Amino acid sequence: MIGIDWGTTAFRAYRLAPGGGVRDRIEREGGILTVPPGGFPAALREAIGPWLAEGERRVLLCGMVGSRQGWQEAPYLPCPAGPAEIAAAVIALPFEGAACRLVPGLTARDAAGVPDVMRGEETKLLGLLAELPAGAEALVCLPGTHSKWARLAGGGIAGFATQMTGETRAVLLQHSILGRLAEPGPSSGTGSDAAFRRGVRRAGDPGGLLHHLFGTRALGLAGELAATETASYLSGLLIGHELRSVLAEGVPQGPVHQGMVHLAGSETLCHAYALAFAEHGLAHRRHADDIVARGLALIAEMIPWP
Amino acid sequence: MIGIDWGTTAFRAYRLAPGGGVRDRIEREGGILTVPPGGFPAALREAIGPWLAEGERRVLLCGMVGSRQGWQEAPYLPCPAGPAEIAAAVIALPFEGAACRLVPGLTARDAAGVPDVMRGEETKLLGLLAELPAGAEALVCLPGTHSKWARLAGGGIAGFATQMTGETRAVLLQHSILGRLAEPGPSSGTGSDAAFRRGVRRAGDPGGLLHHLFGTRALGLAGELAATETASYLSGLLIGHELRSVLAEGVPQGPVHQGMVHLAGSETLCHAYALAFAEHGLAHRRHADDIVARGLALIAEMIPWP
Repeated sequence: MIGIDWGTTAFRAYRLAPGGGVRDRIEREGGILTVPPGGFPAALREAIGPWLAEGERRVLLCGMVGSRQGWQEAPYLPCPAGPAEIAAAVIALPFEGAACRLVPGLTARDAAGVPDVMRGEETKLLGLLAELPAGAEALVCLPGTHSKWARLAGGGIAGFATQMTGETRAVLLQHSILGRLAEPGPSSGTGSDAAFRRGVRRAGDPGGLLHHLFGTRALGLAGELAATETASYLSGLLIGHELRSVLAEGVPQGPVHQGMVHLAGSETLCHAYALAFAEHGLAHRRHADDIVARGLALIAEMIPWP
Repeated sequence: MIGIDWGTTAFRAYRLAPGGGVRDRIEREGGILTVPPGGFPAALREAIGPWLAEGERRVLLCGMVGSRQGWQEAPYLPCPAGPAEIAAAVIALPFEGAACRLVPGLTARDAAGVPDVMRGEETKLLGLLAELPAGAEALVCLPGTHSKWARLAGGGIAGFATQMTGETRAVLLQHSILGRLAEPGPSSGTGSDAAFRRGVRRAGDPGGLLHHLFGTRALGLAGELAATETASYLSGLLIGHELRSVLAEGVPQGPVHQGMVHLAGSETLCHAYALAFAEHGLAHRRHADDIVARGLALIAEMIPWP
């Protein structure tokens, strides 16, 4: 079968063996924002045509392709939700030559009753769950434009909360006075790591995030933060605030316990979050970003294909 | 004399009577970002030429015109600083036909030792100080792109802290997913006020600012926040976080006491902050935005003009 994670800015397709192993993959730009209205079937055929020609007949999609701006909207499924509930809520998409199915996103409410949503991450979480002992409880962090913190329990996704960390960093660096101050620096390495850690620690000072943001500029003006360190420091500051909020207030359905976080995402982000976890004495276990393929395979096994 | 507040995006000039009364004023766009390198003397002459022709011979400037991106950099003066210290640190600008002087900005350090800066607000604060009984202590909020919270004591500016609230709101609305969700709504009135208050209250929920930002989007997706309310709700959320940080952690040099804030700024921002103060049971006294003219007049009286 073919599993696809079609997000806002990226397209990832996996050709999966019956056991769930990845036989082949396509990773490219071409997120849903690049697809014209009504253009999803053609864009999909263009991308996976060779695999279809070789006889694949089942396609399972997840991600923002199931949003209002995507191919077709798949209603959100409320948490808690496990593999069976998610597989039962998969919807069919009209596509010639193959059975095409779409995984729904999830919704949850935080302690104050405010809703939260995810699309695509539910599939990653099921993939990650499959790597844990049956019945295990786990706290998961999926860093990104909109970082997801989720609690796995009872064989499914008990609850989750989003932090708008990555997008806030991007708009501040690209459009605010903080970006005008920043110069390209080492994107990794000890220099960049030191500035990042300094930002993480700054998040614990009095004054709040909005004060700390302006302080980033004032440090630069005072010659106490190099222009090449600004971007790393800002990342540390925002991720530091994210982590402090999560540690102080927990994730829906329970506190942060056992001092252990399961982490999956891009190399760069996982490196950054690992540094922030270490600053807080928090252990973590890294999972491959490919867990989405495992989740797609797992859901596919539970769907009544034609 | 002529007093000028020349900021990043606006130019405000006041023709002042000997007692400090405003005889005439010019308010327009034409902030320092619109002035080409070396173009400040010509831009100033173009703006206040008629007043110079009528015999004015003293010009005092404050604001970002004294920054690295302005006419000439005036080094920051450290807090605490009163009218005498600020007047003594004024620098001379070369300008034909009138004596031209520039008010320095101030710098302060927060509880963690991180620097903070202001340019222009120090002059507003001196103008506001002149409206209070001699020796009064006061907590002042000057809302704006970069909101300033200052403590007045000992006849001067004891300390201050900046919150990057306005700029954060602007970049999120213009460039993030929150803006794509927002539709123009009433910029004032009870509907807008209700959404604003809801944002202020949300700031007190668990999860932190970065979680609350994403919640703004999720509320919209869930149909629990109208697109026309998004901008007001976001303002309330950010100002609510600003206020909670200030109330919880104080302003440099002491706590928030007496439950009273002195407020000066634009009509729209003062209305918004007044709503947020009311949510927190905090009294306030509104001062005219013109306090900068009073501050300029006060400093001018203490300068040894040629």
